[in-house]
Amino acid sequence: MNLGALIGLVLGFVILGSAAAIGAADAGVKVGLLMDVMSLAIVVGGAMAATAIAFPLPDLIGALGGFAKVFKGKDFTMKDIVQDYVNLAELARKGELAKALDETPEHMPFRLGFIKDGIRMIADGMSKEDIRTILENQEQYRAIREVKYANAMAKLGEYAPSFGMIGTLFGLVFMLGGMAVPAPPGVDPTAKLLAAMAIALITTLYGALFAFFFFLPFSDYMKYVNEEKKVESAMGLEGAMLLFDKIHPLIVRDRLNAFLIRKDRLSDEA
Amino acid sequence: MNLGALIGLVLGFVILGSAAAIGAADAGVKVGLLMDVMSLAIVVGGAMAATAIAFPLPDLIGALGGFAKVFKGKDFTMKDIVQDYVNLAELARKGELAKALDETPEHMPFRLGFIKDGIRMIADGMSKEDIRTILENQEQYRAIREVKYANAMAKLGEYAPSFGMIGTLFGLVFMLGGMAVPAPPGVDPTAKLLAAMAIALITTLYGALFAFFFFLPFSDYMKYVNEEKKVESAMGLEGAMLLFDKIHPLIVRDRLNAFLIRKDRLSDEA
Amino acid sequence: MNLGALIGLVLGFVILGSAAAIGAADAGVKVGLLMDVMSLAIVVGGAMAATAIAFPLPDLIGALGGFAKVFKGKDFTMKDIVQDYVNLAELARKGELAKALDETPEHMPFRLGFIKDGIRMIADGMSKEDIRTILENQEQYRAIREVKYANAMAKLGEYAPSFGMIGTLFGLVFMLGGMAVPAPPGVDPTAKLLAAMAIALITTLYGALFAFFFFLPFSDYMKYVNEEKKVESAMGLEGAMLLFDKIHPLIVRDRLNAFLIRKDRLSDEA
Amino acid sequence: MNLGALIGLVLGFVILGSAAAIGAADAGVKVGLLMDVMSLAIVVGGAMAATAIAFPLPDLIGALGGFAKVFKGKDFTMKDIVQDYVNLAELARKGELAKALDETPEHMPFRLGFIKDGIRMIADGMSKEDIRTILENQEQYRAIREVKYANAMAKLGEYAPSFGMIGTLFGLVFMLGGMAVPAPPGVDPTAKLLAAMAIALITTLYGALFAFFFFLPFSDYMKYVNEEKKVESAMGLEGAMLLFDKIHPLIVRDRLNAFLIRKDRLSDEA
Amino acid sequence: MNLGALIGLVLGFVILGSAAAIGAADAGVKVGLLMDVMSLAIVVGGAMAATAIAFPLPDLIGALGGFAKVFKGKDFTMKDIVQDYVNLAELARKGELAKALDETPEHMPFRLGFIKDGIRMIADGMSKEDIRTILENQEQYRAIREVKYANAMAKLGEYAPSFGMIGTLFGLVFMLGGMAVPAPPGVDPTAKLLAAMAIALITTLYGALFAFFFFLPFSDYMKYVNEEKKVESAMGLEGAMLLFDKIHPLIVRDRLNAFLIRKDRLSDEA
Repeated sequence: MNLGALIGLVLGFVILGSAAAIGAADAGVKVGLLMDVMSLAIVVGGAMAATAIAFPLPDLIGALGGFAKVFKGKDFTMKDIVQDYVNLAELARKGELAKALDETPEHMPFRLGFIKDGIRMIADGMSKEDIRTILENQEQYRAIREVKYANAMAKLGEYAPSFGMIGTLFGLVFMLGGMAVPAPPGVDPTAKLLAAMAIALITTLYGALFAFFFFLPFSDYMKYVNEEKKVESAMGLEGAMLLFDKIHPLIVRDRLNAFLIRKDRLSDEA
Repeated sequence: MNLGALIGLVLGFVILGSAAAIGAADAGVKVGLLMDVMSLAIVVGGAMAATAIAFPLPDLIGALGGFAKVFKGKDFTMKDIVQDYVNLAELARKGELAKALDETPEHMPFRLGFIKDGIRMIADGMSKEDIRTILENQEQYRAIREVKYANAMAKLGEYAPSFGMIGTLFGLVFMLGGMAVPAPPGVDPTAKLLAAMAIALITTLYGALFAFFFFLPFSDYMKYVNEEKKVESAMGLEGAMLLFDKIHPLIVRDRLNAFLIRKDRLSDEA
Repeated sequence: MNLGALIGLVLGFVILGSAAAIGAADAGVKVGLLMDVMSLAIVVGGAMAATAIAFPLPDLIGALGGFAKVFKGKDFTMKDIVQDYVNLAELARKGELAKALDETPEHMPFRLGFIKDGIRMIADGMSKEDIRTILENQEQYRAIREVKYANAMAKLGEYAPSFGMIGTLFGLVFMLGGMAVPAPPGVDPTAKLLAAMAIALITTLYGALFAFFFFLPFSDYMKYVNEEKKVESAMGLEGAMLLFDKIHPLIVRDRLNAFLIRKDRLSDEA
Repeated sequence: MNLGALIGLVLGFVILGSAAAIGAADAGVKVGLLMDVMSLAIVVGGAMAATAIAFPLPDLIGALGGFAKVFKGKDFTMKDIVQDYVNLAELARKGELAKALDETPEHMPFRLGFIKDGIRMIADGMSKEDIRTILENQEQYRAIREVKYANAMAKLGEYAPSFGMIGTLFGLVFMLGGMAVPAPPGVDPTAKLLAAMAIALITTLYGALFAFFFFLPFSDYMKYVNEEKKVESAMGLEGAMLLFDKIHPLIVRDRLNAFLIRKDRLSDEA
Repeated sequence: MNLGALIGLVLGFVILGSAAAIGAADAGVKVGLLMDVMSLAIVVGGAMAATAIAFPLPDLIGALGGFAKVFKGKDFTMKDIVQDYVNLAELARKGELAKALDETPEHMPFRLGFIKDGIRMIADGMSKEDIRTILENQEQYRAIREVKYANAMAKLGEYAPSFGMIGTLFGLVFMLGGMAVPAPPGVDPTAKLLAAMAIALITTLYGALFAFFFFLPFSDYMKYVNEEKKVESAMGLEGAMLLFDKIHPLIVRDRLNAFLIRKDRLSDEA
């Protein structure tokens, strides 16, 4: 569970919701005034349309799939990975590494799919060099793919305010054009102008909200996670190589501890 | 067929078209209010004029030619290239490589012009080093040329909103200047002002639309494709070198598979 | 005490406070008009919410903790560090380095925690190479951590004006929507519009104030300090290595002087 | 003759001129309303004043001198340079290279001043290494100088809109200040306000026009040409070295062809 | 005397002064309307306050001290430095280098403090390696220091428009808030609004003027000068090393000429 993103989203929604409720009450209008399906279509649909042209479709889909992943967070720490490898090193020395693959994840912690792949290949008897190459390739393509997803998400955040502006310009042109023709009897032209102006501004509001509260922060987070995963993968690869060589668990611990900041290291008593 | 660009364009047009239709109906004006030939000339013509100064003419023409190419997409995958080279390696071993050049593209897949050039040079008996140099030069100039096209396209996207702003300022100055002289009898000065204001804003709208819905996404896509082509060309060159040496088809497959991500690789049974 | 930051803050508050007092008096309104809790919540809360999504929570907390540190400044100069090491070198030669750890900071100057760590490790009998590695790791992780804090602070400064704009758009939409419904009797609609407009603009004002007077200058300062600390740490490491080798105090002075600009160097008589 | 820049300038002037003529007719005002000497002084003079502070005077003068050069274009192609060197190689072999210097440019093509310098030095009997050093230095300082000119031109394009905004703010402050005093009898205050507003906006219009239609595209072109000249000079230097060694014309052709893209190369029959 | 900066400043003041005078006359107000002490305090004071937080105080003071230096310009050319070193080389050969230190600057040209330092150290009998290290360190710290000054100046130029906007928002909020309360009898509310609006815009005007006419161009110039000084110092160091070795004046001339562009070189007859 990624607590920061959850707190951020809830905090943002509470603040913006309260502001909308209080603002609407002050002005004597309904909060629903802020909801406009067509404005939503222009901003979100328009940003997606432009991004679908700029990026191949799989990148755009991957970017949107990243929303869910941001909240999932990680259910393990770097220290857990060290602990896992120490346990696996014990099994590897007894020649029972393959057994680990049959156990359920709850019992024996396989926190990173990457680790499992490495063990399977060792159990299958592949050469050390082949295992290294395959794991490195796998990680490289993951990084390239996820950077593209984060870039497509950032592009959504770049286009959302642009389409917000386009929507407002649409509204302004029609509003002004409509004002130029005489108003039918019984309609207050000023009221009509003001109401149309309010609607026109909603796309600009949506563009800013989607960019600064959704697309851009999520894109930043995706880039941040990608950097972290690179360290995890380097550690996972080093661990797999150590398992292959049936290195003693204590040395495995020391070698992998080097990837951690001091206070997070797995100590003797752990 | 590049599905993403098509979906993006259709989605964008549907959204913007609906927004325009609904907006016009709400305001009691015709949708045609948004169409203004002079505004189009200022934004698109102005952006092209400025880009024609900034870039040599062939680059600007190449950029505009790129629009069509974006939709064409690729009718082959990286895996197809591997398959082609495996088939050609079979022919090369039999000493019948030249035969491949006479067959129709439908029958024998020549998906990349680059591959054909390589085969022709091999059939013509050129030296391996000359073939490598010529293919590398050819690829290098292609990349330089296409980056220039994408840059010229991006420059159009940079100038379009600027000329949109210039057009609106033209409109505002004349509108305000016109308001300062007394209106002839029978003309409502406010209606005249509002109508002129609507027209003045259209160039700003066009500038944003052309930049964010056309020029900039297409430029992004052209840069993206260029990066992909670099990988394809590196693969094509490696393949041509393998054909020259009459390497066994199975080894050709393994060597070229290394350019692909794992799940896309050509497997034994393929 | 960081005098510059204090002068900057006081100067800024005096200028902005006077401007507000005079402006309010001129307009015949109270200064309190500028205070609006909901506007504050939108700008500061919104910026924090977005930053909490973009960065992991510890980075955001570290950034906010940096505010206090900016004012603390440094209570020592680079020259003091040279002097400390010269004194310690004297002790080290006598084999009494461990004694320095028992003395109170006032008596024997331990101005940098980094120096203390080095001495403790030397006193504990660790190997020179281990001491170097540990001190280097410690410094590297400090730098990475503090750059993240400064980046999170800069992100707050980037989002504050955005949420200022969002708040103003909220206000404008409600204001215009509220104007479109007929005003109840006894309420002057123009006065209502103007008052609502004033409130709507306050979030834009807050966004600019928080970004340009708080978040961005503090982020710049945090980055500046980080660069300085890198030099201090390099000097601290060099000093620890010299202590380990029990180098003569005069040579310690010459070697560490090289890190200082000429006029700040510790001279013979100092 | 640089056709692209000419087409761009003519196209831009035709579009903007038509837009001005039609817009003026629609508004019932004269096109001359757009002409304002003081506005021109603020935008162009202001931008030049700021650039004269930012850059040494020779760079600013060089930048303005670049305007004329953009239209001149090149009266030769890369292929012509190859042809020239082939002809000169013929003379060099006969030991008559110095003769080429006496002939008129029409007869014997000396398209690049750089080539002439090389030949003169060879005829003067300078050493090969000295010729190389002098030609390289000459080219390096040319590139540095022309990049500075292009940067000064870009700076003009950066300051023009800024001074356009300053001019508009001047106008707005005076207009509003003037409106606050009661209008003399017989003057319509609204008409006065609107006319003043129109004038105030002209500097913003000029700022955008000069930046996006003159300074920035010309600066881009100057940078583009500079990149091309680097290739020409590398080719010219290679050619001079080949002449010095009295290499056979056919080999000169092959060596210099390598600088050209394939379709532009000088072929056997040429 | 730096002629460019002087011309730029005078030209800018003349243009802006004339524009203000003519604009004020047209609007029937006094030019003094543009002078507002509180606005000046907000823009310049605010920008300085924010920069005092972002940068240590000495950098801010150094930046402001740079204003005077920009006008001073250089009273020597690169060629003069070559000439000086040739003269000094003559003295060095006669073993009378120390004599040069006693002469007055008018008589014997000591145009660069850097040169004097070198000669003094040679006369003091320091080792060649020590002189080189000291001169290099001195130059490196000068460059770092002056880049910081230029950056602090640029930061002032970045914050000035921001505080201009903050001042205008202050003014707008109070103006609108003041309009919402009924005007006292005898005060025209529209005139009051317009006058307040004029004042509010003055900070935006000041922000743009200070940024684009002072802070940013001066910062650019300071960066430009810093680059030039690097070349001068490299030349000065080379010269000092040649003096140390008592090299013949003619060779000193040739070696130092290499730093100059061709047409500026010291020739035989000079």
